[in-house]
Amino acid sequence: MTDAYLVGAGQSDYGSFPEESYRSLFRTAFEDCVSSVPDGMDPDRIDEAVVGTLGVGGRQLGLSGPAVTEHVGLHGVPVTRVENACAASGYAVRQAVQAVKSGMADVVLAGGVEVMTDASGDAVRYWLGVSGETEWERLSGTTFAGVYAQMASAHMREHGTTAEQLSHVAVKNHANGADNPHAQLGFECSLDDAMSAPTVADPLTLYHCCPTTDGAAAALIVSEDVVGEFTDDPIRVAGVGAASDRVGLFQRDTYAGVPAARRAADGAYGMADHSPDDLDFAEVHDCFAIAELMAYEDLGLCERGEAGPFIESGATRPDGEIPVNTSGGLKSKGHPIGATGAGQVVEAFEQLSGQAGDRQLDDPRVGLTHNVGGSGGAAVVHLFEREKEVMG
Amino acid sequence: MTDAYLVGAGQSDYGSFPEESYRSLFRTAFEDCVSSVPDGMDPDRIDEAVVGTLGVGGRQLGLSGPAVTEHVGLHGVPVTRVENACAASGYAVRQAVQAVKSGMADVVLAGGVEVMTDASGDAVRYWLGVSGETEWERLSGTTFAGVYAQMASAHMREHGTTAEQLSHVAVKNHANGADNPHAQLGFECSLDDAMSAPTVADPLTLYHCCPTTDGAAAALIVSEDVVGEFTDDPIRVAGVGAASDRVGLFQRDTYAGVPAARRAADGAYGMADHSPDDLDFAEVHDCFAIAELMAYEDLGLCERGEAGPFIESGATRPDGEIPVNTSGGLKSKGHPIGATGAGQVVEAFEQLSGQAGDRQLDDPRVGLTHNVGGSGGAAVVHLFEREKEVMG
Repeated sequence: MTDAYLVGAGQSDYGSFPEESYRSLFRTAFEDCVSSVPDGMDPDRIDEAVVGTLGVGGRQLGLSGPAVTEHVGLHGVPVTRVENACAASGYAVRQAVQAVKSGMADVVLAGGVEVMTDASGDAVRYWLGVSGETEWERLSGTTFAGVYAQMASAHMREHGTTAEQLSHVAVKNHANGADNPHAQLGFECSLDDAMSAPTVADPLTLYHCCPTTDGAAAALIVSEDVVGEFTDDPIRVAGVGAASDRVGLFQRDTYAGVPAARRAADGAYGMADHSPDDLDFAEVHDCFAIAELMAYEDLGLCERGEAGPFIESGATRPDGEIPVNTSGGLKSKGHPIGATGAGQVVEAFEQLSGQAGDRQLDDPRVGLTHNVGGSGGAAVVHLFEREKEVMG
Repeated sequence: MTDAYLVGAGQSDYGSFPEESYRSLFRTAFEDCVSSVPDGMDPDRIDEAVVGTLGVGGRQLGLSGPAVTEHVGLHGVPVTRVENACAASGYAVRQAVQAVKSGMADVVLAGGVEVMTDASGDAVRYWLGVSGETEWERLSGTTFAGVYAQMASAHMREHGTTAEQLSHVAVKNHANGADNPHAQLGFECSLDDAMSAPTVADPLTLYHCCPTTDGAAAALIVSEDVVGEFTDDPIRVAGVGAASDRVGLFQRDTYAGVPAARRAADGAYGMADHSPDDLDFAEVHDCFAIAELMAYEDLGLCERGEAGPFIESGATRPDGEIPVNTSGGLKSKGHPIGATGAGQVVEAFEQLSGQAGDRQLDDPRVGLTHNVGGSGGAAVVHLFEREKEVMG
């Protein structure tokens, strides 16, 4: 079976862009992605494309894959839209890896796009709600913030996690995002800012919640046969893991973790023959502050129940033992639903190829991305590894 | 690279089922599919699932893959929803093939589901419309019947195709569907019925248009390594081809054909090392009568422009040289958007495994399925081949 390699990745700015369309944002990400390929790539080399989007607002709910790829000149190649709520483009990247490893394609574009800020608050709640459980969550009035608030409450009760520890997620990620020119909320926040912000869904304050975002991101996955044409410093997709779970939180084994993410991580570590100790950084799905803390545990970065003290220790800051969300994460960089998973891969690519600018870590070799759909009905984890020795 | 095999396929009835949900329909298809595996299969053997759905009506637009698979007990495995309008589950089958050939899964469920008949006429038009081009088609008032009427008009003008020839599609497919216990419109129609029916979009009459349908379908794709556990009469996925095109008809190279389907067919024939002459039957995407005629030409069953005389000759009847839509096709069997592509594979499985009942062809060995998204923004073609000799 051929290995799959990440040879380029790019994104639009994340933010509110009333003057842009979902197509123009995708084009920006596509062009940024293609131009990031170290030795260059003619877009005609692309054999296939996979596009993640939820379709917030309902502007192009059918054929939304071909609708964006035709706009960048890819009219002809197989294009598949995938949707797994907020994990849509994480799954798009996974499908690109499968396409390459299947031998059916050598060069696959995996991307995602979402336009959210032109929708009303009610519409955004509807569109996020339809990614949750219908009868027992959405139709009974539970919002996504409400679902994650239940998870935060459970984690606090079971493990003694505090509001201050939740707030440390915001402080760290905003500090990181302040160094990311693509970030939607690229400003720092203090612990007091996060603690004293208005409550959205108790115990979550405004600073414990990511924003709604317009944006697009894309990555290029290629086969072993052709990787040498595009770079002499290849980044291998060393591990891929994915899992589903019951869509409704109330039907799962625990409220204080995301079992699908745990299974996805196990799959990715197993495939890569790596353990959490091998990681140099991770981009995790911090749609709410509690989600980042649960990710630490689900990914094995710390022991179960220890995520609160772990963030407080500074372990996940850029100078810590395992930097998490150097991009700013969903909290500061932003969360354009369908683009988020591919956007995490952009940060992994930039860190591993030394292009992360002010956020650059010191010679990282192994990075992880962790993308969750809904409150954990789907999860996908990728491990990327720079392996200069392969190409000599 | 491992080969991929089709070892089971099943479906719900197609029709209008106000007492069913999208989940219960999917469960029926899943159970029918699992029980169709010749030597049996424990559902725990399923490594992964891919679900096609457009989500007509908006009841579960996010995580709709896990929402149906959890209902059949598959909570845990990776599940991806794919959408390519009416080709959603054709692409789901293709993704299952990639998953198997990638070595990342041995047993993959590919299915689809749609519930349409509980929506108002306006809602159905909206939901089909969002699979067309937005600015120049949907928002300017063009329906899907209108788009295909333009294609029919072009084919008539360029090739002399007649309304009577279009009507022969309805007569043949209703005759076939009358033998299919799952068909929504399982009754015969006469040439006069089809010719004299009310006009929907000139030149298309009511009998030139498929119905709106509730239904689900599913197929099981497995690797070479495990196929022997499930059958000693394996059906190989010999060829897979897919292609996209501009979403808007007005931007394509022709109105009188579907270029994406032609490219998809070329890909499938090439991969299988087969030509149209090798086919024993085909299930094609006859959402409108003109679509079946264009399919004959796009698939190379007849020369370009000759589809009208070809259907008139009886060549595509069950006793003709290349039987087309023995299931009844979308016209008579029905067209539950997200289920249609997988439903075509059900007919291929039943024909190739000798389980097609009153519709059974005489010892077919090679069958083709042809699934089109929108008016041709996406297309996917599969070739299935029974190869008893492989297993001795």
